[in-house]
Amino acid sequence: MELELITIGTELLLGHVVDGNSAWLGRRLAERGLRVTRRVTVSDDHAAIRHALEDALARTGTVVCTGGLGPTSDDITREAAAAAFGLPLEENAAALASVEARCAALGRVMNPTNRIQALAPPGARVLANPRGTAPGLVLEDAAGRMVILLPGVPEEMRGLMEDQVLALLAARAGGALPPVRTRTVRTTGLAESEVGRRVDEVAAELAPLDVAYLPHAEGVDVRLTEWGTRADAEALAALDTGAARVRAVLGARVYGIDEDDMAAVMGGVLEARGLTLAVAESCTGGLLAKRLTDRPGASAWFHAGFVTYDDRAKEQLLGVAHRLLTEHGAVSEPVAAAMALGAVLRAHTDVGLAITGIAGPGGGSVEKPVGTVWLAAAMGSSVETRLVRLPGERDEVRRRAAQAALDLLRGVLMDDTQGV
Amino acid sequence: MELELITIGTELLLGHVVDGNSAWLGRRLAERGLRVTRRVTVSDDHAAIRHALEDALARTGTVVCTGGLGPTSDDITREAAAAAFGLPLEENAAALASVEARCAALGRVMNPTNRIQALAPPGARVLANPRGTAPGLVLEDAAGRMVILLPGVPEEMRGLMEDQVLALLAARAGGALPPVRTRTVRTTGLAESEVGRRVDEVAAELAPLDVAYLPHAEGVDVRLTEWGTRADAEALAALDTGAARVRAVLGARVYGIDEDDMAAVMGGVLEARGLTLAVAESCTGGLLAKRLTDRPGASAWFHAGFVTYDDRAKEQLLGVAHRLLTEHGAVSEPVAAAMALGAVLRAHTDVGLAITGIAGPGGGSVEKPVGTVWLAAAMGSSVETRLVRLPGERDEVRRRAAQAALDLLRGVLMDDTQGV
Repeated sequence: MELELITIGTELLLGHVVDGNSAWLGRRLAERGLRVTRRVTVSDDHAAIRHALEDALARTGTVVCTGGLGPTSDDITREAAAAAFGLPLEENAAALASVEARCAALGRVMNPTNRIQALAPPGARVLANPRGTAPGLVLEDAAGRMVILLPGVPEEMRGLMEDQVLALLAARAGGALPPVRTRTVRTTGLAESEVGRRVDEVAAELAPLDVAYLPHAEGVDVRLTEWGTRADAEALAALDTGAARVRAVLGARVYGIDEDDMAAVMGGVLEARGLTLAVAESCTGGLLAKRLTDRPGASAWFHAGFVTYDDRAKEQLLGVAHRLLTEHGAVSEPVAAAMALGAVLRAHTDVGLAITGIAGPGGGSVEKPVGTVWLAAAMGSSVETRLVRLPGERDEVRRRAAQAALDLLRGVLMDDTQGV
Repeated sequence: MELELITIGTELLLGHVVDGNSAWLGRRLAERGLRVTRRVTVSDDHAAIRHALEDALARTGTVVCTGGLGPTSDDITREAAAAAFGLPLEENAAALASVEARCAALGRVMNPTNRIQALAPPGARVLANPRGTAPGLVLEDAAGRMVILLPGVPEEMRGLMEDQVLALLAARAGGALPPVRTRTVRTTGLAESEVGRRVDEVAAELAPLDVAYLPHAEGVDVRLTEWGTRADAEALAALDTGAARVRAVLGARVYGIDEDDMAAVMGGVLEARGLTLAVAESCTGGLLAKRLTDRPGASAWFHAGFVTYDDRAKEQLLGVAHRLLTEHGAVSEPVAAAMALGAVLRAHTDVGLAITGIAGPGGGSVEKPVGTVWLAAAMGSSVETRLVRLPGERDEVRRRAAQAALDLLRGVLMDDTQGV
């Protein structure tokens, strides 16, 4: 079944908020065989919302909207949707109960402003929201056209989708649908054009899977899509075969599949081998440690992180010799190596991983321009180092540096075992 | 001048990529008085792109598109845009020069796949791209309808906008336009409904500024917008007055204005007072240090971070007494306090800030459920602690915990000086 999304909020068009909801919805709906064919963003404007709803309904008959259900004066999605169906708004007992229950759960008295969240057109179905004060609403007309209104707060929107809306949409589609399935092969260290060139060589063998290339600071992903046109077993087999072909042409540059994150992949390797890790960071300022602890369970192998942003901290916390810093500078091979070894010694771990570089915008020189980063990985008393020169602005250099450090660690562990 | 955005990419609809480009474009264009009235996302599908272009052009006459200019087989925006103008594609000398220059700058031979990036409809203006292999294109027909095609890679899109497109659009608008101006008052620690209730009390004094409320994990922002309808001085005065009224009703819960980030604000205070900071983190795993170092110049006041994810690391690196950990558990007031003091002592700083909590999804108990976080701020030998119970999933708990820690620090420094 196809549907359209409408995201509502002047703040989205003005760019004050990045629309993460649409991405989550697209992913979650595709997993249930529900394909988002188009999405539109409009401002908190009655006419714009109403027009977008009418336009989308004319095409697909099923529309999911997010945003504009809050308790404040700029929240007018309820009104505009009611108008699109030619209906008034009135206080709804089920909606009021949802708002009151949420306020009670938070141990506070309902604000008068929350009362507008209890309004709904007659006949609307109320989706009680235990995570926030905005109940969702489902509007359906005699012709069977359906609009589902959800709050824009991500956690609330997701909760309503998981608890109520996905089942409702599946019922509307007449039962569970074959999902849109994807398989993503994740690479790092190759240009998009080189990834494309290699994969194009086997393109004929991948058809009729869709192939897409997604470049980002951590690398280039190759995504294969099967649009739910084949039986389950056949679809999965096609994706397995396709992913294996892609892996074969990209070789050691492939670090994972689908949601695999390089940090999580390396965590799995460390845990399987009973190794513990400490990291020492300068320019990335904690980003590497954050990535390593993004997923639960990292405490099994991630022991400690040192953010030695200041040179004295490199000496005090990691035991980097003062002489190395003055002779070679903080961004140098000897300092990176000393940081990795210092992390191992001070945190009593098996492995140490260090980053020291120039993230910019200042601090660069002719010899060491912005983007110059030294990496080191220590295992026991041996250290491997790598110099990378990373493009982009501060944030991008930091992201690329963290990924490159994990790639160095991968190489060290791979050499050690012949294959991660 | 009004315009519409079209973002192109099946990966966007499937949710494999979050559309950060649209937010950046909306912000940057508004600063130049160029208002995005609508944006649409379609898949890498010839008919869908062409239809979206024709539809948008019928409304506004000026359209900016991002995505689908890469070197791989799924990149078909050039073709679809040419078709919308009824034109063929042919190799363009200026476009080829841009692609070749970029490959040369990277020190690599041009891949044959890059050659499709040199195609353009006759008469198109080429926007040379020094940051990537995809040149931008400007298409304009006899009726003056204009489509600007930009690559989807954020850094490349932004570079082309800054270097070439903003000036081009200003010229099209007949000179510089009065900008859409916003002023954002940032709060933390209040519910959206409470922020709305307080601001509503002064709503009459804010008109005709638009008021919007933006809730997120770090707090609730109140955004005032002036749509470029008044003279510069008058518009700025209205925003100044409005922001002052909003600040007055929100009091000490306001931590900043516009792009102010709590971490940067606290950095400014520390720097102004000549104080240095070290942080000690458990559940946030480096996120607090990362936020403190997100902006350049942090080295003036941020000395070091300890990510003591493992209990032994809390003992070894911060000197937390083993007895405290066994008697009270890692998530406890005494351990938080010992971590903050340990950070000060070990990193030789003036101030220490510590976080220890349960980010989930596992690790919670009846007594200490997921979201239980102890915070501590140490200055010299005195320590202030705070217990917070944070809603949301792992990532959200971590983000809220980092913000709450900064808020604790703000309170400590504010008490100390009567006003930050």
